[in-house]
Amino acid sequence: MAEQLEVRLGKRLTELGKTIAVAESCTGGLIGHRVTDAPGSSTYFLGGVIAYSYEAKERLLNVRHRTLYEFGAVSEKTAREMARGARRALGADIGLAVTGIAGPGGGLPDKPVGTTWVAVSSREGDWAHLHQWEGDRSQNKMYSVDAVLTLLLDVLDNEMTPEG
Amino acid sequence: MAEQLEVRLGKRLTELGKTIAVAESCTGGLIGHRVTDAPGSSTYFLGGVIAYSYEAKERLLNVRHRTLYEFGAVSEKTAREMARGARRALGADIGLAVTGIAGPGGGLPDKPVGTTWVAVSSREGDWAHLHQWEGDRSQNKMYSVDAVLTLLLDVLDNEMTPEG
Repeated sequence: MAEQLEVRLGKRLTELGKTIAVAESCTGGLIGHRVTDAPGSSTYFLGGVIAYSYEAKERLLNVRHRTLYEFGAVSEKTAREMARGARRALGADIGLAVTGIAGPGGGLPDKPVGTTWVAVSSREGDWAHLHQWEGDRSQNKMYSVDAVLTLLLDVLDNEMTPEG
Repeated sequence: MAEQLEVRLGKRLTELGKTIAVAESCTGGLIGHRVTDAPGSSTYFLGGVIAYSYEAKERLLNVRHRTLYEFGAVSEKTAREMARGARRALGADIGLAVTGIAGPGGGLPDKPVGTTWVAVSSREGDWAHLHQWEGDRSQNKMYSVDAVLTLLLDVLDNEMTPEG
């Protein structure tokens, strides 16, 4: 079996001496749970914010009111602002964010169930990817965590340059 | 199989029209993950804070500096302040908190691995329980989530009166 993503990520962060923080919407805490399943994660994981409501996104992550009402909670702009907000709120080097519609409810005509944005923010730039999951609620949460941890590993390996 | 704790809790919170927020240390996000595995949880779950570091506990949950340095992060007083901090930060009716040593590292002579405080805070009062888990890291995290959700169900069922 391949080494678990969170263990690979932990080794890479330890090598680089970088700290991370998370901003979670539809994953509800699963990113933090997965990251902290790796023993010793307290050296690079500072914590995070689980922000289900609009108000929590604004109050705790400093997502702009205008961003939420203009683009919606499940949008590229909100994902990027959440990642940046987590990084700043926790004083971490890197912020990770997921915002999506895990289902079974909550789907919209232009944003069906499974629509999910993942984002990473560092002092060097922001990265964001859109995914469309086809699983049930529980699977969609797992896919989203895998996607944001994979994005972060890619960023750390310098396979990507900032878009934002 | 008995109905899952998070589903029972969701029904009870919906009946009562109460909202909750979480403050997680050693559970790393697992409380939020478990609570949000129940579809429709966004009606009563506002979000939470994952606070691994002392600084995160102070900045995001308003835990007093003196409490942390006098009693330690794994203490009854810190657990109660975390639960209250989550409730206030998210503007929820009830706050839940867990702070403990999941292991394998981090044990102290007077606080061995598995030492865990769980707490609930409402406008009516605070409740806190001490547990000593004997599992591995992953099990200790699961036991802690079960313990804090069970404590909250007890509080909601009025089987307890405030101690604090």
